[in-house]
Amino acid sequence: MDYKFSDGLKSLNPSVIREILKYAAGTSVISLAAGNPSPEAFPTEAVARISERLLRERPIDALQYSITEGYTPLRQQLREYMAAKHNVGADGDEIIITAGAQQVMSLLTKAMCNAGDTVICDDPAFVGALNAFRSLGVKLCGVPMQADGMDMDALETALKAHPNTKFIYTIPNFQNPTGITASLDKRRRMLALAKQYGVLILEDNPYGDLRFEGENVPAIKSMDDGEVVVYAGSFSKVLAPGLRVGYAIGPKAVLQKMTVAKQGEDVHTNIWAQMICDEFMRGDFEAHLQTLRDLYRVKAKKLMSLIDEHLVPYGVTYHPIQGGLFVWCDLPAGADMPAFCTRAVKERQVAVVPGSAFLADETAACRSIRLNHSTPTMEDMETAVARLGELAREMFA
Amino acid sequence: MDYKFSDGLKSLNPSVIREILKYAAGTSVISLAAGNPSPEAFPTEAVARISERLLRERPIDALQYSITEGYTPLRQQLREYMAAKHNVGADGDEIIITAGAQQVMSLLTKAMCNAGDTVICDDPAFVGALNAFRSLGVKLCGVPMQADGMDMDALETALKAHPNTKFIYTIPNFQNPTGITASLDKRRRMLALAKQYGVLILEDNPYGDLRFEGENVPAIKSMDDGEVVVYAGSFSKVLAPGLRVGYAIGPKAVLQKMTVAKQGEDVHTNIWAQMICDEFMRGDFEAHLQTLRDLYRVKAKKLMSLIDEHLVPYGVTYHPIQGGLFVWCDLPAGADMPAFCTRAVKERQVAVVPGSAFLADETAACRSIRLNHSTPTMEDMETAVARLGELAREMFA
Repeated sequence: MDYKFSDGLKSLNPSVIREILKYAAGTSVISLAAGNPSPEAFPTEAVARISERLLRERPIDALQYSITEGYTPLRQQLREYMAAKHNVGADGDEIIITAGAQQVMSLLTKAMCNAGDTVICDDPAFVGALNAFRSLGVKLCGVPMQADGMDMDALETALKAHPNTKFIYTIPNFQNPTGITASLDKRRRMLALAKQYGVLILEDNPYGDLRFEGENVPAIKSMDDGEVVVYAGSFSKVLAPGLRVGYAIGPKAVLQKMTVAKQGEDVHTNIWAQMICDEFMRGDFEAHLQTLRDLYRVKAKKLMSLIDEHLVPYGVTYHPIQGGLFVWCDLPAGADMPAFCTRAVKERQVAVVPGSAFLADETAACRSIRLNHSTPTMEDMETAVARLGELAREMFA
Repeated sequence: MDYKFSDGLKSLNPSVIREILKYAAGTSVISLAAGNPSPEAFPTEAVARISERLLRERPIDALQYSITEGYTPLRQQLREYMAAKHNVGADGDEIIITAGAQQVMSLLTKAMCNAGDTVICDDPAFVGALNAFRSLGVKLCGVPMQADGMDMDALETALKAHPNTKFIYTIPNFQNPTGITASLDKRRRMLALAKQYGVLILEDNPYGDLRFEGENVPAIKSMDDGEVVVYAGSFSKVLAPGLRVGYAIGPKAVLQKMTVAKQGEDVHTNIWAQMICDEFMRGDFEAHLQTLRDLYRVKAKKLMSLIDEHLVPYGVTYHPIQGGLFVWCDLPAGADMPAFCTRAVKERQVAVVPGSAFLADETAACRSIRLNHSTPTMEDMETAVARLGELAREMFA
């Protein structure tokens, strides 16, 4: 049979990162390509303890159908927590629990976009979000990243050029893949532009709690009156990604449509996992976050010092990070980035992600690569970056 | 801000059933409107035991990111089980794990359909599936149900009339909402028609293992050579719906696109839940299924005898069932079905689902209601149907 796929999916392939990770699986390849939390970051004892109690005391609640909006105690707790800690969530806002923040991308797109509509995004941006938009037939318009966030003049140009824009997608803190944090000024300006042009902002903040240095910058959502910003939060980086629990805080009318869309996707999010998140947050959540920050401070600084030692001498530059999981490196001018990535994995057994994977236009010229510090052990990180250094010497010296 | 929603979502509202269930929550209303497994049906001890061991022995595996296709041991086990038990799955087929069978509806639609394309469905049909199709802007063409399944002549007429049809959606066993099981002859004919007109079949089989009487009818997928049928299976009715674990077995090329779509929806299904399903199936799964059948035989027969006693005398008719969770009742000719449902919940504190909720065209005339036997206790079921009988006497005698 000759299958005719939808316009959104027909030319969309599995993400490059996934393919790299598959290639790396079960071999001696050291992966700097993943975005997995460090194994030491999982509060396994606490989860086991909470789970044991839930399944003993309230087994039917943890296993029966539940409501689409999410587990009510978790929604209430998150609403209070996000308001108190981040000033996120106004009177006009609603909160729903999702299957990771990934599902927020899918649901908002379904709610707002017809095929052919435009989503404006950081360029480069998180490929999982880009593919969620693409799979629904949405056109992407990438706006270049600067050291302090998206280029606001280019954003305004893009908004003028694409009147069918439905929302702006951005990760303001420790952006994936660049590690860049948007300045307060740019956040204000993005919000003003969104209001002026009548589009929403999808503020994706998976890494905000993983700042190990410097001052926190207020969320765009904290400056919103419940009209413009849909905020996506996640337990993937602060508790455990395998749970697949995230949430959206945004204008009631929008979240109502997203809830209807969620009924069609999965009815509701795994209820046991929602209860685990709820109970875990009622413990000493701040102490846990501090443990994560301490862990990732050490790993991120190690990665940056290894880059300084092994890659910078051969013309590689990078954006220093104050949080998050990724360091974005630019290979020297004229470097053949795809060849570097291919040779890294095939000849040196080190997997890195080619920067082009994160571009709105994946065929555009790119000489960047993304390195991750959270997944590898300290020893593997040392070995891997040293090997990349050897390759850089061979290719760029 | 004036939100402009997508064409698929703008006129789509939360399902009538959900609204009825909300109305019924926390009141003295007895619900015959749900589709929840009976609380007695949950193997809570086994789940607790398996979970405790998993979180003690393999906590990182159960909490870390996993692959989109699903937990490999579960996929392998299901592949073997479905081949051996149901002859489902050919060489050309692939299997992926999904967030309940609900996600199969969403993923197949994303993979195959552009907005404006047609999906042909049983009429009436499972409203969660219909809304998944609608939310992506798909047009529904309902084909009337007969006592032995979809009307095949009407199906052929529909296929001719809608050349942009991408697939046929059907629940062949104990259909939701009618309880009807399609005959072998109709299954064969549907497959032949699908091949002839070059469309896929989405065979949704959540209740197939809940046959408490009569002979099993082979799955449509068992007659397919891995080309035409995407089979949707689920752990919701045979283990626990809160886990949100289902699966799709279908042509490799199609499932590859569905996998890409799944990356955009939720990256992967909660991994702990997948491991629970895998381990649970390795126990005495058949004995568990037999327990469920014994439980539901008693409850279904009780519901039918109550209908015989309290509703049939006032002109209500119904389709006797041999499995599944629902009994479909037709009110007498000329009955005001919406008024019956409204008065049932408001005056008699009994929630039932108006049949129109399941129609491709919800505004079409309808005098059917759906009753469920799995959720209420035996005592509540007695009280509820007796009250419906009083109302029927008042309205139809």
